[in-house]
Amino acid sequence: MEMNMERLMSMLEELNSITDDGEGMTRPAFSDFEDRAHEWFIGKCRALGLRTHQDAFGNSFGTIGPEGRGVLAGSHLDTVNNGGEYDGALGVITALETAAVLLESGVELEKPMTVVAFRAEEVGLVGSSVFTDTLERGDDFEERLAEMNRTVAAVDDSIGYADYTDYLELHIEQGKHLESKDLNIGIVNSIASLHRMIVDVHGEAGHAGTIGMAERDDALMHTAKILNAFENIVQSYGPPFVGTVGTLEVSPASPNVIPGRVRFSIDLRGDDMETLNEIKARFKTFAETNYNVDIAETPAKAPAHMSDDIMDHIKAACEAAGAGYDVMTSGANHDANPLSRRMNAGMIFIPSKDGISHNPAEYSSDEDIQKGAEVMLGTVRRLLDA
Amino acid sequence: MEMNMERLMSMLEELNSITDDGEGMTRPAFSDFEDRAHEWFIGKCRALGLRTHQDAFGNSFGTIGPEGRGVLAGSHLDTVNNGGEYDGALGVITALETAAVLLESGVELEKPMTVVAFRAEEVGLVGSSVFTDTLERGDDFEERLAEMNRTVAAVDDSIGYADYTDYLELHIEQGKHLESKDLNIGIVNSIASLHRMIVDVHGEAGHAGTIGMAERDDALMHTAKILNAFENIVQSYGPPFVGTVGTLEVSPASPNVIPGRVRFSIDLRGDDMETLNEIKARFKTFAETNYNVDIAETPAKAPAHMSDDIMDHIKAACEAAGAGYDVMTSGANHDANPLSRRMNAGMIFIPSKDGISHNPAEYSSDEDIQKGAEVMLGTVRRLLDA
Repeated sequence: MEMNMERLMSMLEELNSITDDGEGMTRPAFSDFEDRAHEWFIGKCRALGLRTHQDAFGNSFGTIGPEGRGVLAGSHLDTVNNGGEYDGALGVITALETAAVLLESGVELEKPMTVVAFRAEEVGLVGSSVFTDTLERGDDFEERLAEMNRTVAAVDDSIGYADYTDYLELHIEQGKHLESKDLNIGIVNSIASLHRMIVDVHGEAGHAGTIGMAERDDALMHTAKILNAFENIVQSYGPPFVGTVGTLEVSPASPNVIPGRVRFSIDLRGDDMETLNEIKARFKTFAETNYNVDIAETPAKAPAHMSDDIMDHIKAACEAAGAGYDVMTSGANHDANPLSRRMNAGMIFIPSKDGISHNPAEYSSDEDIQKGAEVMLGTVRRLLDA
Repeated sequence: MEMNMERLMSMLEELNSITDDGEGMTRPAFSDFEDRAHEWFIGKCRALGLRTHQDAFGNSFGTIGPEGRGVLAGSHLDTVNNGGEYDGALGVITALETAAVLLESGVELEKPMTVVAFRAEEVGLVGSSVFTDTLERGDDFEERLAEMNRTVAAVDDSIGYADYTDYLELHIEQGKHLESKDLNIGIVNSIASLHRMIVDVHGEAGHAGTIGMAERDDALMHTAKILNAFENIVQSYGPPFVGTVGTLEVSPASPNVIPGRVRFSIDLRGDDMETLNEIKARFKTFAETNYNVDIAETPAKAPAHMSDDIMDHIKAACEAAGAGYDVMTSGANHDANPLSRRMNAGMIFIPSKDGISHNPAEYSSDEDIQKGAEVMLGTVRRLLDA
């Protein structure tokens, strides 16, 4: 049994012809482009002989094999604006090619395999969270859904995880680890816990010419010292812990006014809640002891642990395919996160050139895609006993 | 001869009734509110018996005494948005009250005194630069003037400095020096040279979850170190040298993306070009040696030196008025800067509460205003031999 690489790459190309104008891929969540990608997926499933359905939220499914609880494999079809050709799309297409090969082989399956294309991954894993009934429902739930053109009834009707025992997702790494180690496959052991904070640093605005250096309470100069401390604290823990300040706003933001306030974001990730809480506590102690700051935290979910059984199957599939692999933590979040809360889940990473993703320059070589596809097929066969 | 403080404060109040809605004073350059303030000024001059004229650019003048080259005193009537009641306004009103008192005293003047209200100080000392023919004229001069609703002919027609020998300006300090030393008056020896730079720090954008700390080229973490170094370098020179980073923009500015570029402004001031150039050179060497940066500089003008003769007159007036004073450098720019390039110029500072300016909370006490007004009258009388 062998993957048809020509068909796989041609399906990827067809899917990627569905995009808004501009560089790279633009199929935003809840856009017409996402709708059209799902229509294309359903059509392609039917053409290949899969039984299809779409839930009320818009997640799309194509199934082979008997009735019963089965193996689910896939990813998402939406992209960020001006994103790449592989993030999400490759996971859906590889799962679809796997189902097609299994179907063509005529092998009798003891349980079904379903290919899934989730909705709206890039805006907070929405489709997969609906499917697994793990979506946060706040007071503004109806309004938030209305913005997505969806209803509470549709969400309730789309909870579908109980029909599946396992979830497998192939994805590009979006980092440099595999490339730098010259490996074909990353076997994900967990998806990092993501901790978000918003930090307000308070100083006193003033005229850049008239307030002496010794008389200043400059929120931006305070912030520079806080950023240095944050970087040092995170670095002291080593991989897989990473911390990022991605946004920073200065007020009042005039070249001749000493900044009176700075607000910045913190994105902190790692695979162990205890250590993450320790990093946060050390950072907060430093900032609060030395400066006038307000720190707001978003409640963080625990890391998502992948199934040891599935990891073992992926390892065996790697060895059978002659693929070099490493076990690693995913710093990025994926549909496999909510899925892992409801069933055994596993992820197969393939290398990303230069670690670039969410960018038109996102690239994975045909050879790496082929190795990944072989490992996907091998793993699914092991999960299906096929 | 004595200043009429009741009239002075009531004129200030009348002037400050001319403002757009919102907190504080809003009479932006070239707005209807600035126009109305100048109409009010001309009307008030006439009511007090001054001869008035307005140049083609819109600067307003009120004169007492004989024909001939005279002493000019004043400031500007425009404000920043939501500024204070004293910045500019107080200098014009104090000069006007001085002329009114001289006129009422019946003293025979040997040369004229003219009160001036300049236009558009807050957007680059425009009115006073037109008056002194020191305005930069680039390729886009006509277009820039058109945005101000002015013409080249009007500018040419408004060069008026040759009629005056001296310029005197009372202004709030906008800093904390006088307040912290419990002094009434600052005698300005020079207006600092202002050096502006725009610094671009280049790194590599990337996913906040997938790129390890050791693999990052984080433009914002580089910037934090550059800001620390900048602050240390400036501080090592002591007063009056000050350096400010007032604006800082991060790209792409997403909480989960490592910053690929940071752009920030530098505002560097001091009273000595050689030292300022040394500070800049040390900063540039540090940044360019350690990071990938582009630094763009705006050509800087030399500091503006006030006249020793006028400083002596102000000192004498302070002593006569029993006012505590200090000689100091102005870190903020003022109309006295271009004026000093064409005639003897002097500046009288009075304390600003908490150093606050360009803000509705800007405040100088009645007592400090009175001391300043007395010193203004004393200085003008010395300049006029009256």
